[in-house]
Amino acid sequence: MSFNIARENGKKRVVIVGGGFGGLKMANELSKSGFQVVLVDKNNYHQFPPLIYQVASAGLEPSSISFPFRKIFSKTEVYFRMGEARLIYPERNILQTSIGKVEYDYLVLAAGTTSNFFGNKHIEEEAIPMKTLSEAMGLRNALLGNFERSVTCATEQERCELLNIVIVGGGATGVEIAGALAEMKRYVLPKDYPDMDNNLLQIYLLEATDRLLSGMSKESSEKSAEFLKSMGVKVCLGKKVLDYQDHKVILEDGTEIPTRTFIWVSGVRANAIGNLPENVIGRGGRIKVDAFNRVEGFSNIFSIGDQCIMLGGDPEYPNGHPQLAQVAIQQGKLLAENLLRQEKGDPMKPFHYKNLGSMATVGRNKAVAEFSKVKTQGLIAWFLWLVVHLRSILGIRNKVSVLLNWMWSYLTYDRSFRLIIYARKAKEVVDREKREAEVHWGD
Amino acid sequence: MSFNIARENGKKRVVIVGGGFGGLKMANELSKSGFQVVLVDKNNYHQFPPLIYQVASAGLEPSSISFPFRKIFSKTEVYFRMGEARLIYPERNILQTSIGKVEYDYLVLAAGTTSNFFGNKHIEEEAIPMKTLSEAMGLRNALLGNFERSVTCATEQERCELLNIVIVGGGATGVEIAGALAEMKRYVLPKDYPDMDNNLLQIYLLEATDRLLSGMSKESSEKSAEFLKSMGVKVCLGKKVLDYQDHKVILEDGTEIPTRTFIWVSGVRANAIGNLPENVIGRGGRIKVDAFNRVEGFSNIFSIGDQCIMLGGDPEYPNGHPQLAQVAIQQGKLLAENLLRQEKGDPMKPFHYKNLGSMATVGRNKAVAEFSKVKTQGLIAWFLWLVVHLRSILGIRNKVSVLLNWMWSYLTYDRSFRLIIYARKAKEVVDREKREAEVHWGD
Repeated sequence: MSFNIARENGKKRVVIVGGGFGGLKMANELSKSGFQVVLVDKNNYHQFPPLIYQVASAGLEPSSISFPFRKIFSKTEVYFRMGEARLIYPERNILQTSIGKVEYDYLVLAAGTTSNFFGNKHIEEEAIPMKTLSEAMGLRNALLGNFERSVTCATEQERCELLNIVIVGGGATGVEIAGALAEMKRYVLPKDYPDMDNNLLQIYLLEATDRLLSGMSKESSEKSAEFLKSMGVKVCLGKKVLDYQDHKVILEDGTEIPTRTFIWVSGVRANAIGNLPENVIGRGGRIKVDAFNRVEGFSNIFSIGDQCIMLGGDPEYPNGHPQLAQVAIQQGKLLAENLLRQEKGDPMKPFHYKNLGSMATVGRNKAVAEFSKVKTQGLIAWFLWLVVHLRSILGIRNKVSVLLNWMWSYLTYDRSFRLIIYARKAKEVVDREKREAEVHWGD
Repeated sequence: MSFNIARENGKKRVVIVGGGFGGLKMANELSKSGFQVVLVDKNNYHQFPPLIYQVASAGLEPSSISFPFRKIFSKTEVYFRMGEARLIYPERNILQTSIGKVEYDYLVLAAGTTSNFFGNKHIEEEAIPMKTLSEAMGLRNALLGNFERSVTCATEQERCELLNIVIVGGGATGVEIAGALAEMKRYVLPKDYPDMDNNLLQIYLLEATDRLLSGMSKESSEKSAEFLKSMGVKVCLGKKVLDYQDHKVILEDGTEIPTRTFIWVSGVRANAIGNLPENVIGRGGRIKVDAFNRVEGFSNIFSIGDQCIMLGGDPEYPNGHPQLAQVAIQQGKLLAENLLRQEKGDPMKPFHYKNLGSMATVGRNKAVAEFSKVKTQGLIAWFLWLVVHLRSILGIRNKVSVLLNWMWSYLTYDRSFRLIIYARKAKEVVDREKREAEVHWGD
């Protein structure tokens, strides 16, 4: 296996690992720049994480919030390769991936984060994460399957486990999925399961700190908790999860909550790449970069977005930036510009994050939003949230699809995608995955 | 586990196994009839098989051609249970399923068919079937994955295997998927893979008999072959597949065709149910029924649709009916009526299939259709095909979704759903599947 990309005369090669918000922005900015751009991603599509919770709660199809890279790049000169980055040989300027080696002149690590289970292998094995589309589809399937089984199970104890939902993590994702499931409980389940005792289904949102949405203002935190409570969600602050055993979530204070739908959205950890020196790995596995997103100690390796941490580089954010889409996009844009400047012999510009605001939605007509000077909650925030997210989705087809689905759900109170379905894995695919999993140190 | 359905005073219970065209029709007809109706299906959704090939070829999403049973039945009194039928205890009027036992007064077997590999375990393991939505999604994933790997593979031999597509079976499904893939090759791949040598990708359609669409007229067979050839498909008639080894399809005449996309749509076999006497199982595993769809030798067990065969019951079809949606629908409708007649003490009516015609689509503006006296090919047939299928899809939302997707694809020549994605299976689901797989003879 190899990348099968010929070097072009006089063109330096930029290899970007990861096609999330940061990597994609950078690839597009550099697509007609005189660089040969290669983007490597383990998926063949760009996904839109802010709406993944709607896939999990059966409101949207995965295809509505994802976009094939080859379609994105079909009118550019960017090379796409589907594969997983494994490690770097910095002295030889080579990146090793699951599909072979590729030489780079500039390497940009933009591989984002994965769920953080804080070392608890037990929770890692049992909990249902919701970071990727694949995980969201798995959660949807598990959730709907549990509802089905609650109808035919043998004991009240089991019924209680099957219906209870425990969400761990009170960030935006936790708040949003809790709200979406509360609406499903209220509007969809009574129709679907006329003989289900709706009171048995309880939605718990557990947060270890003393407030939800810690990235936003106190006002937004309180309002979102209030919204959720009004929708019937049991919001439990200051509750730390210790373990999950025998279908029970065990809290630090000794409380046990029975559930078979144990959703883990309690923090992230940067995706790892092999062979970087230990001293460049910071908090949460993030790669330490300077003000130009250059990995400490390297001249041609960069990292952007959630995967990196810029300590002291941006005066307003001495401890690093929040892990948000906007940071990644702005870093991707600036780094593209900086590489071009460097080629021309101009000095690079340091990164300064421009905070465009943040928002989270809780349910119908209920959201919280804050911008530099304005804070708003409720209907206006909800409407702003819709517009901002719709604008950000790639492609007309996807925008139309999301808009139509939202309108349909709003008018009918329905969730259209209540299918329990797994794609059958062909043997050829299983075999290939085994082969590629073995590629590590050489091929 | 149990079905948890209480007997209602004076209501006899009809248990229907399978919610395909026949089972669903029957459930709906009986929903307000004075019977207690229980429908068991292994999926939580009704699917629309005629368009499954469009899911496989990335033209439609699974949700567009499937519909949750609980939504269908939400305004009726039909009980839905998700589970797999295992065997019957006729002397006790009990059906054993993966989720427990259920007692019946009338049992209706409408579980349809599965792919027939004619006993070749090797082919069964390696080939990619396309009977269910799950299989269609698996095929889509495998196909797109093979295209991706064709870009980075090491040898010409492997590239050839990854790009060649071999479809075995020249019935409607084989013809339709061949046509859809030919259009993908022509319109989508050159844009997605500018550096792919399109000539390396060959689509073979292998059929053991001497013509395609053996259920239709010779004229339609010839026209469909002509259409496919004009689209670049290699149509090979009279070619029997013996085996698949080392990524090669081996034909009876000794020819070998290298491929890693080996699609098997070469025939079906009725789904089996345990404990029926051997003598009621006919050709292709189909359950022998009389003119009233009653299983031979039983008074309260019936079978309808593809799973059954009516030998000698319908004078026009002495050797049984073709396995088509219309047969199943008409049988489901009549059997519902007959059960009601029987309850009233009226004699049951024998079944006579009314052939409403048949059609198959090959590509843009290309289809074949025939009705009792009219045969048509090309644009008109294609348009009829669209209208008939759109009308048959359940639910306004799905109709709109399919129509918009078709219009979009027609105008843009694009296939929107080119995502390689597998839902992550939660441990709770894996555990449950293991438990339920063990339920066989008792629980």
